[in-house]
Amino acid sequence: MNNFRFHARTDIRFGKDQITNLPKVLKKYGKNVLLVYGGGSIKKIGLYSQIIDLLKDFTIVEVAGVEPNPKITSVREGAKLCKEKNIDVVLAVGGGSCIDAAKVMAAGAFYDGDPWDLVVDSSNIEKVLPIVSVLTLAATGSEMNKNAVISNMETREKLGTGSQKFIPRVSFLDPTYLYTLPKMQTAAGTADIMSHVYEQYFQKNDGAYLSDGICESILKTCIKYCPVALENAEDYEARSNLMWASTLALNGLVCAGKGGAWTCHPIEHELSAFYDITHGVGLAIVTPSWMRYILSETTLHRFCNYARNVWNMQGEDSMELANKGIDATENFFKECGIPMKLREVGIEESAIHDMAVATTAHNDMQSCYVSLSTEDVENIIKDCF
Amino acid sequence: MNNFRFHARTDIRFGKDQITNLPKVLKKYGKNVLLVYGGGSIKKIGLYSQIIDLLKDFTIVEVAGVEPNPKITSVREGAKLCKEKNIDVVLAVGGGSCIDAAKVMAAGAFYDGDPWDLVVDSSNIEKVLPIVSVLTLAATGSEMNKNAVISNMETREKLGTGSQKFIPRVSFLDPTYLYTLPKMQTAAGTADIMSHVYEQYFQKNDGAYLSDGICESILKTCIKYCPVALENAEDYEARSNLMWASTLALNGLVCAGKGGAWTCHPIEHELSAFYDITHGVGLAIVTPSWMRYILSETTLHRFCNYARNVWNMQGEDSMELANKGIDATENFFKECGIPMKLREVGIEESAIHDMAVATTAHNDMQSCYVSLSTEDVENIIKDCF
Repeated sequence: MNNFRFHARTDIRFGKDQITNLPKVLKKYGKNVLLVYGGGSIKKIGLYSQIIDLLKDFTIVEVAGVEPNPKITSVREGAKLCKEKNIDVVLAVGGGSCIDAAKVMAAGAFYDGDPWDLVVDSSNIEKVLPIVSVLTLAATGSEMNKNAVISNMETREKLGTGSQKFIPRVSFLDPTYLYTLPKMQTAAGTADIMSHVYEQYFQKNDGAYLSDGICESILKTCIKYCPVALENAEDYEARSNLMWASTLALNGLVCAGKGGAWTCHPIEHELSAFYDITHGVGLAIVTPSWMRYILSETTLHRFCNYARNVWNMQGEDSMELANKGIDATENFFKECGIPMKLREVGIEESAIHDMAVATTAHNDMQSCYVSLSTEDVENIIKDCF
Repeated sequence: MNNFRFHARTDIRFGKDQITNLPKVLKKYGKNVLLVYGGGSIKKIGLYSQIIDLLKDFTIVEVAGVEPNPKITSVREGAKLCKEKNIDVVLAVGGGSCIDAAKVMAAGAFYDGDPWDLVVDSSNIEKVLPIVSVLTLAATGSEMNKNAVISNMETREKLGTGSQKFIPRVSFLDPTYLYTLPKMQTAAGTADIMSHVYEQYFQKNDGAYLSDGICESILKTCIKYCPVALENAEDYEARSNLMWASTLALNGLVCAGKGGAWTCHPIEHELSAFYDITHGVGLAIVTPSWMRYILSETTLHRFCNYARNVWNMQGEDSMELANKGIDATENFFKECGIPMKLREVGIEESAIHDMAVATTAHNDMQSCYVSLSTEDVENIIKDCF
């Protein structure tokens, strides 16, 4: 087990109607609130008007229209408003994109240059306004972590940044907010959660047995409940388990004692940077191809554990067992309705080489579970067509 | 899934040599440190002298000799020193008893009356000095939670108290500190961890599938690694998994979305209050008797899950399967060397009735997984002879 630091200090308020505590929570930080949200979905479900009602004693400044794969242009707008309107606290209401954007806005409030500098080099992040989130999508885990991923369509870059100061102070997780999600967002969000776990589970053996067990529990939760939520959008048990799974998958818990760089996220970030596809869909497509590519005598043991402990599979022949687990992964995503070929999401084969070059240029692909060269990445992406 | 709040805000520094960060951590709170520890074990392993060396720029005031099942007399001494010596931060170096005592001392620093009032009624806890812990025993989870259990031998009471302000700011978890533990402490500590999980796992069905999965992972970790640590005291993988299991078993994680009062801890607290036995040993003895007593058609499903998911057992007959799981639990404790009869630890049958009366007098035994009357508790204790 590797040394680690675990400090997931967000105060989580989980369950129905927790939002009524919002005024009390925000009051602690001040009176001027920057309200950050995405499209109209929070208006459609009545959450927007409920929040406006609850915050009638506060001064609210809005940044609406934050995109999926949030763009630096939105972040610049929010950072500018933080400065101009003397904002005390940033309230993100939405999914991971919205929370990610809010994080960089909150840092931009105290930064004199272009907020893109804070994405390119996290050491530029100094002071950060307090961040509170209200989650409406189970996917990224941004509600309890220090990460933010921002896209710059001018430079075709989608880059991650982070700071301990980005960790939301309080996050409200009400599973009923997920009831109106389109099926594809439920499925893609689940793929994102699972991919976070895969990135941390498939690492060199480090004796972190307990962390591996928690990984398996989260994966089993996704496999059990995503189909239930797709079948019955208002199944509270399914929505609540998926929502909590999203938070635990990326708050530092499942990598406690484990190490190593990630693989599928870096590859997917280039797909999104080039073609602006849905993050979770890109991950679902890349994952089985990556698993097949790195399956070998060296990685066999872990893939067998995966098949046994997550999929309840048994078998004499280890290689066969491992492959059955990978096939089950692919079939699961397919049955959740996710398009499983890059061609289906509009990506062109002509871009494969450039996306592979960008992957190894922007990321350390040597410290992954199995190190990958540009050629390896190219082969994995090719296999996704 | 029930509504819940999760706010385990302790900054965990896990692994070898993390202690070198201690001066930097303490400096944030001030210069005057109350160092709280138990017997001589921290001197024997060199930890005491290492800490004294590291803190040469601080003013250290010591409270030594904190007992297992920490006594209010020690707490009174510590609280008095906090006031007299103008203490800035309380540093507990030891197991859960030591950390529990430190918590109430830190609250006693600001309380005018007898610190026992803070145990009897937690609403008396107002301001609390910051608490930092260095853990030397994997058992209670006190290193990342708000609980403290203190004994008063004059009144024959062992009572729990708690406050959000008791949560340690930083806890150092170095698994090598466990290398010199006597076998009985390793085994009893593991029984304590497992009992914490049992108390939260065996509750009415609430759809908290993910939390149940994490419970099972922690139990499997204990079952896998306690025998390894007993066989080879310096097995780092075993010690580190057990240490992390102890923290996660009682920091709010495994009860997320679950509810209900505890059963075995209230009963054991009375055994300890009357006879001052080792807490983990008392729990190990009471647990299988309790499980057998409450096994019924109503609870069968959960006991079958337990046998299947924790012990990897299978079977056609559900009642047989459930009983096999309970037998395995009892055998496991036995094989770890724990005396499994109350007689063996010096408890007299003449006290059964009084201990049962005290259990239901001090605790809400109606909101347990299966509610228990005084007579039920008496029957369970009788079965432990």
